[in-house]
Amino acid sequence: MKIHDIEGFPNPARIRIVLAEKRMESLVEFVRVNLYDAEHQKGPFREKNPTSTVPVLELDDGTFIGECVAIAEYLDNLDGNPILTGRTPREKAVIHMMQRRADHQLIDGIGVFFHHSTPGLGKANEAFKSADWAFRKQWGDKHGERAIAGMKYFDGVLQTQPYVAGDQFSVADITVWAALMHGDYAGLTVPADHTALLEWRARINDRPSVKNRSGQNLNAEDLPHLEPLLPI
Amino acid sequence: MKIHDIEGFPNPARIRIVLAEKRMESLVEFVRVNLYDAEHQKGPFREKNPTSTVPVLELDDGTFIGECVAIAEYLDNLDGNPILTGRTPREKAVIHMMQRRADHQLIDGIGVFFHHSTPGLGKANEAFKSADWAFRKQWGDKHGERAIAGMKYFDGVLQTQPYVAGDQFSVADITVWAALMHGDYAGLTVPADHTALLEWRARINDRPSVKNRSGQNLNAEDLPHLEPLLPI
Repeated sequence: MKIHDIEGFPNPARIRIVLAEKRMESLVEFVRVNLYDAEHQKGPFREKNPTSTVPVLELDDGTFIGECVAIAEYLDNLDGNPILTGRTPREKAVIHMMQRRADHQLIDGIGVFFHHSTPGLGKANEAFKSADWAFRKQWGDKHGERAIAGMKYFDGVLQTQPYVAGDQFSVADITVWAALMHGDYAGLTVPADHTALLEWRARINDRPSVKNRSGQNLNAEDLPHLEPLLPI
Repeated sequence: MKIHDIEGFPNPARIRIVLAEKRMESLVEFVRVNLYDAEHQKGPFREKNPTSTVPVLELDDGTFIGECVAIAEYLDNLDGNPILTGRTPREKAVIHMMQRRADHQLIDGIGVFFHHSTPGLGKANEAFKSADWAFRKQWGDKHGERAIAGMKYFDGVLQTQPYVAGDQFSVADITVWAALMHGDYAGLTVPADHTALLEWRARINDRPSVKNRSGQNLNAEDLPHLEPLLPI
């Protein structure tokens, strides 16, 4: 199998954590996609994944699987021993519910904020965005508000249970964790009074699959052209 | 089990189709949620589902499951014979990939367009939206553009395979079908040159689980206060 991604970014981190939890890293060859050059927006990559997102899993039969929720589902079921996506109908349902909320409110909310209310990935990606900067800022900020509301929601959830989907660590924890990592970079940090969310995050940071991964995110040295493009 | 929903609406239709495909309708008691009175935005309902969406599945142990993707996952696995969400890791992955795209591009895109670029569900729901009508219209229209792009994407997919996720009918087909039903109502119809999508839709309309369901959608007689609220 191959994974087309870029190390240190939030969605790629989700799948790298899944691989570490499953001890499957040696099964995968990584192929770097240069997001700073907008490689993900161009023809050859879009043939692999028309939604222009990383990571993409390439199976040995040539099938391309996009969308983290789908890649995680594949990898977790591959050895017949799902530990991250649930075993019983009830476990699967609760994990998918929380996973969808984490994607919609946090991953999508923070992602759109990052790309539209901040300089995002820089100049090479400008051609793929609206030229209406005022609307872009409003669009990004509205998504940012959704993310902030999402943080409050997940803080409430974690006041009552140790993990996002209940008593067990799952893909939903990985999704929330990756979103918060992106939020830190984009300037949407967890409010200090969200103590349950922050305590949970500290515990997740200590997992062997996650440890030291925070420091790799979106290294500013990789972003030479990140001068502000928008009036933020 | 109970399902809290309202007949004829797109997301409720998704789960009612799943129940019909699984022949599980007799296992469920339906409880009507009055969306026109914004019942889904208020305290008692939000205790069941904090994201204020229908349907919600209530299990006999008191657990509430929101998000259609999660409810479908539960119901499809309940009898140990999943026919809509995949059996092998590869099937599960492809179905979840297409399901996520259908949710993100079509269900969310058309839903936001409906609620913000049209009068939506009417006056009782106004209090839960922004008072900035100009932004609301732009916000809704931008989501509508995403939905139109999504229709083109799914038309392309269906030029190469009989169902949204490949050779078999799946929850991803149900999601696209429900989104297009909502699109018709909201004024985002499938362009006539998307012949593969339209031909697929005609086939889905003929399934016993779907047949005659189109006619029930969002009956205009249920919408007495749907005079235009926005400058559309």
